Amino acid sequence: MRRVPPGDNLPRWVCDACGEIHYQNPRLVIGTIPDYEGKILLCRRAIEPRYGYWTLPAGFMENAESTAQAALRETFEEAGAQVELGEPFSLISVPAVNQVHLFYRARMLSVEFKPGEETLEAALFDEARIPWKDIAFRTVALTLRHWFADRKTASFGFHAESLDR
Amino acid sequence: MRRVPPGDNLPRWVCDACGEIHYQNPRLVIGTIPDYEGKILLCRRAIEPRYGYWTLPAGFMENAESTAQAALRETFEEAGAQVELGEPFSLISVPAVNQVHLFYRARMLSVEFKPGEETLEAALFDEARIPWKDIAFRTVALTLRHWFADRKTASFGFHAESLDR
Repeated sequence: MRRVPPGDNLPRWVCDACGEIHYQNPRLVIGTIPDYEGKILLCRRAIEPRYGYWTLPAGFMENAESTAQAALRETFEEAGAQVELGEPFSLISVPAVNQVHLFYRARMLSVEFKPGEETLEAALFDEARIPWKDIAFRTVALTLRHWFADRKTASFGFHAESLDR
Repeated sequence: MRRVPPGDNLPRWVCDACGEIHYQNPRLVIGTIPDYEGKILLCRRAIEPRYGYWTLPAGFMENAESTAQAALRETFEEAGAQVELGEPFSLISVPAVNQVHLFYRARMLSVEFKPGEETLEAALFDEARIPWKDIAFRTVALTLRHWFADRKTASFGFHAESLDR
């Protein structure tokens, strides 16, 4: 049940049986922008939400790992791709769903990849062929737009922002 | 109790009474580096852990807010300070405690501040007077060191890293 624990100021999930307090804070979704000779690796989702839509490899950060480890793990789990991680590129809050999305730049170490369990197919796209109408999430579309815009200037920045409801 | 829900691959807290699954993912701790004419505002902690030690204003991001809103809220709650937020400055994973710490650059809009409920006292420090031996957390010390180093070069970067156990 939800109640305000002693010393707190917001209601939390508290287990009546064992007293465990389960704080529900925003979760980090972490992924990469895998670049192979200027093409970007996208995954078509085999799970809801947004089944069948295209996304960058990404997923929920797990306990006991760093943000960089989460990015590498998700890229391998979802796309079977080995990458060299670059700098963090975008950090986008999505308050409507209590998430923060973080994407790293990444260079694919080879052209090899294969879809994981949560992916229908994976494929490399150059800018002209990105399926903009079928991108799964606004944070992914925004990240890709920033990436292609920055590439034109040959200067990759760091993009922090928030998506309104 | 902890068990592996259907379709998952890690044990999660599942309520036997209502079936609610409480995922426990890393939490974001968000704060600022409040700058007033070159001095930095620090808070002495009135709570555990690290009671009595100095820290930057920061705290757990809450649901339904953005990272920037969390930074502003915590700065006001802990230090009573109104700031103009700058760019994200440091993003430091702490896998040992399942946390990710994010600090924003911030300019104090006035010299006014006052300690909040979780703060014994707040004070402005120039670089020579930072109480390095009494800083509460490694992420805060690291962030401050990056900040003063970057200020010397008049070029503030973005620092992403992970603290080993």
